[in-house]
Amino acid sequence: MEGLDALELLSEQFRALPGIGRKTAMRLAMSVVSRSDEQAAAFAEAIRVAKERIRPCPVCFQLCQDGHCAICSDENRDDSLLCVVEDTRAADALSHIRDFKGRFHVLQGTLSPIDGRGPDQLRIRELTERLSGGTVKEVVIATGATVEGETTAAYLSRLLRQYPVRVTRLAYGIPVGGDLEYADELTLYRALDGRREMT
Amino acid sequence: MEGLDALELLSEQFRALPGIGRKTAMRLAMSVVSRSDEQAAAFAEAIRVAKERIRPCPVCFQLCQDGHCAICSDENRDDSLLCVVEDTRAADALSHIRDFKGRFHVLQGTLSPIDGRGPDQLRIRELTERLSGGTVKEVVIATGATVEGETTAAYLSRLLRQYPVRVTRLAYGIPVGGDLEYADELTLYRALDGRREMT
Repeated sequence: MEGLDALELLSEQFRALPGIGRKTAMRLAMSVVSRSDEQAAAFAEAIRVAKERIRPCPVCFQLCQDGHCAICSDENRDDSLLCVVEDTRAADALSHIRDFKGRFHVLQGTLSPIDGRGPDQLRIRELTERLSGGTVKEVVIATGATVEGETTAAYLSRLLRQYPVRVTRLAYGIPVGGDLEYADELTLYRALDGRREMT
Repeated sequence: MEGLDALELLSEQFRALPGIGRKTAMRLAMSVVSRSDEQAAAFAEAIRVAKERIRPCPVCFQLCQDGHCAICSDENRDDSLLCVVEDTRAADALSHIRDFKGRFHVLQGTLSPIDGRGPDQLRIRELTERLSGGTVKEVVIATGATVEGETTAAYLSRLLRQYPVRVTRLAYGIPVGGDLEYADELTLYRALDGRREMT
């Protein structure tokens, strides 16, 4: 807005975040300046503190606080099973599945030639270093079922052939609670293709 | 996420913004900590500066920078025409309509008994004070065509009867470029009701 440079600047900061467009960014910026001085200061402080304390774990590259990653330092997890995910949120979601006791490796993204993200932009070299120790017996590729997730999975699966590990991929199919009527054809095809004997 | 208090705190700050849910808030917080130190510091600083410099204009309550409202201090605008809007964004949008040369009054919200917003929470007293000077001849009520916007318009229209001003409301109808097929019944009814002679 004309003459409101400070508001425009804040709006641009919001706009740089994923999924935030021009109008939403301005709405958020206006909401921040409409708060009390204390509330706005608390927001700025939360950014500073989070940026200072939250860093990627040097082993698995999950975001962790004060250099301490709960999963890497958990002695009850299985070193022979390594789950490769795109980001910390995926690792967090899977870490709550009680029956899965493996460890994680966060790629910090997916391969996307269009966006200029090749293997060197991801934590793939660090993944192969973890495999070279020989402790890992199975790598579960748990990238998303998106185009980028699939491309990344295919690339990793080829790359990992040179290591003595079993490489698996998450199952595709109908989400639990999902209605067949609303599933797309590809999902239905994959669900049929991956059908299992009922016991 | 477990053990990531600093990230959770930042996520809560995002969640307090309008239209941001739990998952989006966490995505935004993670995006901020994934930026460089300089970028994160610039975001925090933008909040501080915007909160310091952007304040409501003491006359029309639009957000303005360093106490200076471009519209109130524009001598070429018509003091007799006052357009009442919900927020600064609406005032900004209407201020770019070249044929409209009136001034603005920002209510800073709408009446909404459910959310506990009554007339005292809005800048209605300040509006009546502006009218008591006698300079204003017409008040255009330009609140949104939402339930809250309509309620506010109806309240204002009744309230302003005691002042010697013409009270008008923005026209309802088919938006320009809009397809009749997709217009709702109420809009069609209003468009018919407000039909005008073609010249």
